[in-house]
Amino acid sequence: MDPDLIRRLSIPGESKVLLCVLDGLGGLPGPLGRSELESADCRHLDRLATDGALGQTIPVGHGITPGSGPGHFALFGYDPLVYEVGRGVLEGTGIDIELQPSDLAARGNLCTVDADGRISDRRAGRVATEVTAELAAELSTIELPGCEVVVHAVREHRFVLVLRATEGSLPLSDAISETDPQAEGVPPLDAVATGPEGEHTAALVNQFAREARARLAGRETANAVLLRGWSTLPDLPQLPELWKLRAAAIAVYPMYRGLARLVGMDVLDAGESFETAVARVRAAWDDYDFFFLHYKPTDAAGEDGDFARKRQALRDFDACVPELLALNPNVLIVAGDHSTPAMMAAHSWHPVPLLLWGDNVRTDASHHFDEGECSVGGLGTIPAKELLPLAFAHAMRLAKFGA
Amino acid sequence: MDPDLIRRLSIPGESKVLLCVLDGLGGLPGPLGRSELESADCRHLDRLATDGALGQTIPVGHGITPGSGPGHFALFGYDPLVYEVGRGVLEGTGIDIELQPSDLAARGNLCTVDADGRISDRRAGRVATEVTAELAAELSTIELPGCEVVVHAVREHRFVLVLRATEGSLPLSDAISETDPQAEGVPPLDAVATGPEGEHTAALVNQFAREARARLAGRETANAVLLRGWSTLPDLPQLPELWKLRAAAIAVYPMYRGLARLVGMDVLDAGESFETAVARVRAAWDDYDFFFLHYKPTDAAGEDGDFARKRQALRDFDACVPELLALNPNVLIVAGDHSTPAMMAAHSWHPVPLLLWGDNVRTDASHHFDEGECSVGGLGTIPAKELLPLAFAHAMRLAKFGA
Repeated sequence: MDPDLIRRLSIPGESKVLLCVLDGLGGLPGPLGRSELESADCRHLDRLATDGALGQTIPVGHGITPGSGPGHFALFGYDPLVYEVGRGVLEGTGIDIELQPSDLAARGNLCTVDADGRISDRRAGRVATEVTAELAAELSTIELPGCEVVVHAVREHRFVLVLRATEGSLPLSDAISETDPQAEGVPPLDAVATGPEGEHTAALVNQFAREARARLAGRETANAVLLRGWSTLPDLPQLPELWKLRAAAIAVYPMYRGLARLVGMDVLDAGESFETAVARVRAAWDDYDFFFLHYKPTDAAGEDGDFARKRQALRDFDACVPELLALNPNVLIVAGDHSTPAMMAAHSWHPVPLLLWGDNVRTDASHHFDEGECSVGGLGTIPAKELLPLAFAHAMRLAKFGA
Repeated sequence: MDPDLIRRLSIPGESKVLLCVLDGLGGLPGPLGRSELESADCRHLDRLATDGALGQTIPVGHGITPGSGPGHFALFGYDPLVYEVGRGVLEGTGIDIELQPSDLAARGNLCTVDADGRISDRRAGRVATEVTAELAAELSTIELPGCEVVVHAVREHRFVLVLRATEGSLPLSDAISETDPQAEGVPPLDAVATGPEGEHTAALVNQFAREARARLAGRETANAVLLRGWSTLPDLPQLPELWKLRAAAIAVYPMYRGLARLVGMDVLDAGESFETAVARVRAAWDDYDFFFLHYKPTDAAGEDGDFARKRQALRDFDACVPELLALNPNVLIVAGDHSTPAMMAAHSWHPVPLLLWGDNVRTDASHHFDEGECSVGGLGTIPAKELLPLAFAHAMRLAKFGA
């Protein structure tokens, strides 16, 4: 997707596009020689395959295994190699922090240092989340000149530090080094500017680390902090502006809400389950043109290496398809942010199955939604970032290029 | 392949990747309507196709017929349109000359000039290689200020001139014109600088040509030189550094050894036949992570327009497959640098069959390794430069991109 081209060609309309992202959708053959999708009984998806067209997406590049961030940005139309989002921002995104353009975020660890100030445990014995929450509240009271400090507990020893430049102050920069030496037996590092624009921020960060040390000095463990993944909000062209539409994100897990928020979608309350998420889509149907609906169980089962559970998760999604079709979307897409083969128990680089159904689709010979049929489907194998232009074209929301 | 991305994501490991390049692999249907591969009985490759996945590579671009250099660079992961290697360097590479970064190489012809200095035969009657070797030795004694001169006979009237800047001297530049007018009845041209950085080199080259003229003045034929294809060693990111591995090249023919050397592979002695080459792979198996094994007979037969011999060459390679499999590679690739259809008796632009077998391969429906099945194989049709990222991903040597 070329943002300038999309801005130029996109047109408003009445049509509705529903993008269902089955996290970690693609798989590999299991012990019986068939993949999760190949062996799942997904009759509704198969019907969509029959009436629609199949293909594959390459999330980042051949052989490149994407994290959730790059995988979703690609599906949202952004080249993940161009629009890279830093670790700190992603971690904040993952716990529903609403970051602002003036924010600098870092991933933090509580760690334990000995009497000589040397790290004896980088993870502070994986201290309980509740303790981290208490200490985060304490660290959030640290005052720095020209910026607000907020520390958010994540889980166990992990937290997110957000520094927010106050109005009229010097801007914060991610051009600073990490304070985590990634080793024990040595003291935490000072942050050092990696460019002149980072000098002001490095001084603030070192002041924060010293203050944190002082506040935690009475503790045996979890008595210091390590900071890494400094990042600011990326300058992403916003999806509603690019495409001239209203976009809604419905996701049970915060990471995916956060990613959608970064590209300008409205984040709706999805409730606690996929059923409540689907109900939320229905309730909001009249208010938006584009819906991003996220489904996590496929990836969760794949990451756990649980072939049978991933297959069941596919069936469970399939069971919801009639309810989604009842909304009468003009274009319905079933895609994945990456493959998570249960046989690998991890994200992988393999192409991701793709299904496009709805108005103006050139149907192909497919009858079953699986890796094999997708690899020879009529849509071909396309970079994931090209999916939205394809979808909105089918929804008649892209004008002709040239006369 | 984006070198910076690969540097960032590549990880060391214990896995082994074996890249078999069947030179000129792809073909076209012969008189009976089937291609060389389609009509060859390659049962071992078919077995690999059944257990692995097929696809096609596009070496340079659609419709672009590659030479050996670009064809191999693409398979090694380099965009051949970005990393162009000049003719002089390639010619030197083809006769096993080890060039250095300070070298300037040119392809040379011995030619015959008449009493007025006009070229009467651009190829000096295709003078015998032995004579060229003698004259090359004589021309190598020419002394130029600030650079060494070595002339290497190639075959018949052809030679390679290497100028090597001595330490502390002005660097040599390829920004000079050719002295070969590509016509007879006119005198050889003077080299002219095509940019200010070429002026010093143009003067040296013209001095060399005058000296050569003087040394050869007593001869009736082969009494002057023509020089073209000026080139210096390209600045290629080195494969072992990019991928964090040890890479070995095993090739009977010098051109392919030279190409591998240019990207930093260790060149092993392959002996005189493919059998000795395979034995060399086996002997070196513990010492390397990546093996490039080159097989020439497919291309040689194709270039000769000998359909039956190319088919036989495919069978002969097939017979070696069990020995290669016995090495237990984690990933085995059978690829080609380009197609050389016997029906065309030349390199061609057609996509090249590709077979990927080993760990983590998403098997497809293929059962026969040929152009037809490859064109609908599960790997799809990919730029050849994407092959190595794909292969090393399967070998678990690429980390995840983003969180």
